[in-house]
Amino acid sequence: MVIDDKFYMKLAIDEAWKYQLLTYPNPAVGCVVVKNGEILAIEAHKEAGMSHAEVNALKAAYLKKHANDTLKIKKSSREIHEYLLKNHNNFFNDCEIYVTLEPCNHIGKTPSCANLLKELKPKRVIIAHEDTNKQASGGIQTLESVNIDITLDCMKKEAYDLLYPFIKWNSGTFVFYKMAQTLNGSIDGKVSSTMAQLYVHTLRDKIDLMLIGGNTVRTDKPTLDARYIAGRAPNVMIYSKNKIFDNNIPLFKVPNREVIISDDLFKLLDYKFVMVEGIYNLMDALKERIDYIVLLVSPKIRKGVNALNEIDMDFKIVHENYIGEEKILFLKRTK
Amino acid sequence: MVIDDKFYMKLAIDEAWKYQLLTYPNPAVGCVVVKNGEILAIEAHKEAGMSHAEVNALKAAYLKKHANDTLKIKKSSREIHEYLLKNHNNFFNDCEIYVTLEPCNHIGKTPSCANLLKELKPKRVIIAHEDTNKQASGGIQTLESVNIDITLDCMKKEAYDLLYPFIKWNSGTFVFYKMAQTLNGSIDGKVSSTMAQLYVHTLRDKIDLMLIGGNTVRTDKPTLDARYIAGRAPNVMIYSKNKIFDNNIPLFKVPNREVIISDDLFKLLDYKFVMVEGIYNLMDALKERIDYIVLLVSPKIRKGVNALNEIDMDFKIVHENYIGEEKILFLKRTK
Repeated sequence: MVIDDKFYMKLAIDEAWKYQLLTYPNPAVGCVVVKNGEILAIEAHKEAGMSHAEVNALKAAYLKKHANDTLKIKKSSREIHEYLLKNHNNFFNDCEIYVTLEPCNHIGKTPSCANLLKELKPKRVIIAHEDTNKQASGGIQTLESVNIDITLDCMKKEAYDLLYPFIKWNSGTFVFYKMAQTLNGSIDGKVSSTMAQLYVHTLRDKIDLMLIGGNTVRTDKPTLDARYIAGRAPNVMIYSKNKIFDNNIPLFKVPNREVIISDDLFKLLDYKFVMVEGIYNLMDALKERIDYIVLLVSPKIRKGVNALNEIDMDFKIVHENYIGEEKILFLKRTK
Repeated sequence: MVIDDKFYMKLAIDEAWKYQLLTYPNPAVGCVVVKNGEILAIEAHKEAGMSHAEVNALKAAYLKKHANDTLKIKKSSREIHEYLLKNHNNFFNDCEIYVTLEPCNHIGKTPSCANLLKELKPKRVIIAHEDTNKQASGGIQTLESVNIDITLDCMKKEAYDLLYPFIKWNSGTFVFYKMAQTLNGSIDGKVSSTMAQLYVHTLRDKIDLMLIGGNTVRTDKPTLDARYIAGRAPNVMIYSKNKIFDNNIPLFKVPNREVIISDDLFKLLDYKFVMVEGIYNLMDALKERIDYIVLLVSPKIRKGVNALNEIDMDFKIVHENYIGEEKILFLKRTK
């Protein structure tokens, strides 16, 4: 295996994918710090409002060589920024920093990463993809202004796949379909593990809107909240021509939730981050509007209904990972 | 992410999995060389008779720091051994060597890796799993005899999963089922890409026996050779009560091949490395005898037959990877 810039960038990209969709409205970003050839940190941005990937990686890298330093107890992005600016003592001058996205140049919920790097003066910054968000871009120029060596477009295609949900929800609507099945495509009964269900509730807590089919609501009588993680229940749109539903179905009783009943899919365009759950007849209606399928696959073969058997669609697997013992596949529609 | 022994061993294990089953009758083994914290090489054993993982990794590590050295043109294991013994100049003294299996201690088709490491004297050797093959074991003692620091059992469970086919074919029979399907489990028509088909032919070239169902032979009239890689066509057992077949079916015309027609699955025990292909009614008969399913998943949803819908089985995903744009899952039967 060749160990080059791509190898280190791949580590950053894979780390970022662990938090894909969970950083909304921010992009998923990963960062690797290498000092004289030694990997000191592989970190990612985990949630909006929390430290950016670069800050997490710089902190971890510093602590790798100063295990009991006070930096350990600094939690907020601002505290870490300030601490590193004061105490770096040229520690990063022989470091190479791999980051999947151009370091942010604006001061938002957290201070600017480009300004921090400008002061820490690493030997080289390797960037996979430029920032597409005008407000935050300009990081490259900031680094160039102090003559930091910059390498651009390393694994740009893979970084674009990582950035894609962010690009979509920034410019319009990102719609993903959450599916859970066995290896052979069976969807009957309880397919997913508790850990996969926790993940689904974590997603529900992040999204702007959940779309679900009317028949699923009538048959399954779901709650569709995020109780497993004590999270926020998402607003729900029920896709149905028939507007009459039994008000005792639990989803209608969740406090602080809006429920729309409609068969107008254009309403989705009013939201930025939409998750679709439920039975697969919705898939046919939605086909052209779906960006991703997030597919949870339980490693078993089971008798049961495979309701996708009337659909033809092609995908690219943009990433896969494990959630406990199950697979999670991120599928981008290509046809 | 924590960067510790496990991190480096995982790189070695993942590299080894790329050649899983293809090293028969040898085990799949991976090796990582780290010098003063810098990863110099991530290599694996690729095929029986070729260099072991350690030799590939030591060569790559040396060349990483001596790019135009004569070592570059040394291809055979014996040449690399001899060259490194003469020219190492203590290069490896500050190296840590991560290897998924105890270095071999006996001189077979290639010289002993333990003896080579004993002379190169790395700072530390980290071993995931001891060798279960009595003939080759004793490597740890050889390293200890010259006081090389040894760390045992790092990621032993994962290394056991990697070693499992080797353990099975060494002590009896390893049987795996090759399946190809779409995301939703459809098996109709041409499911796999050319690259996946190349992989299947590479597997066919390695196995002792291919098992296939009689109905599949009658319906598909297959050739079942390894022509895509100009490889050896495997011997075939057709599982069928009815012994009468049309002799014009191509598989009967492949030269230098034995074909058995039988409904006695105990015959499988006469072979060490068996691959099952064909329609899934065989799965039910074989259920208890299958060690792995090697599942190729094409990233599309298609209308079509899902013939597994009458079977209940549980698996552990022991590894997954890509073959081109498709997924390959290694599934170990757990129930």
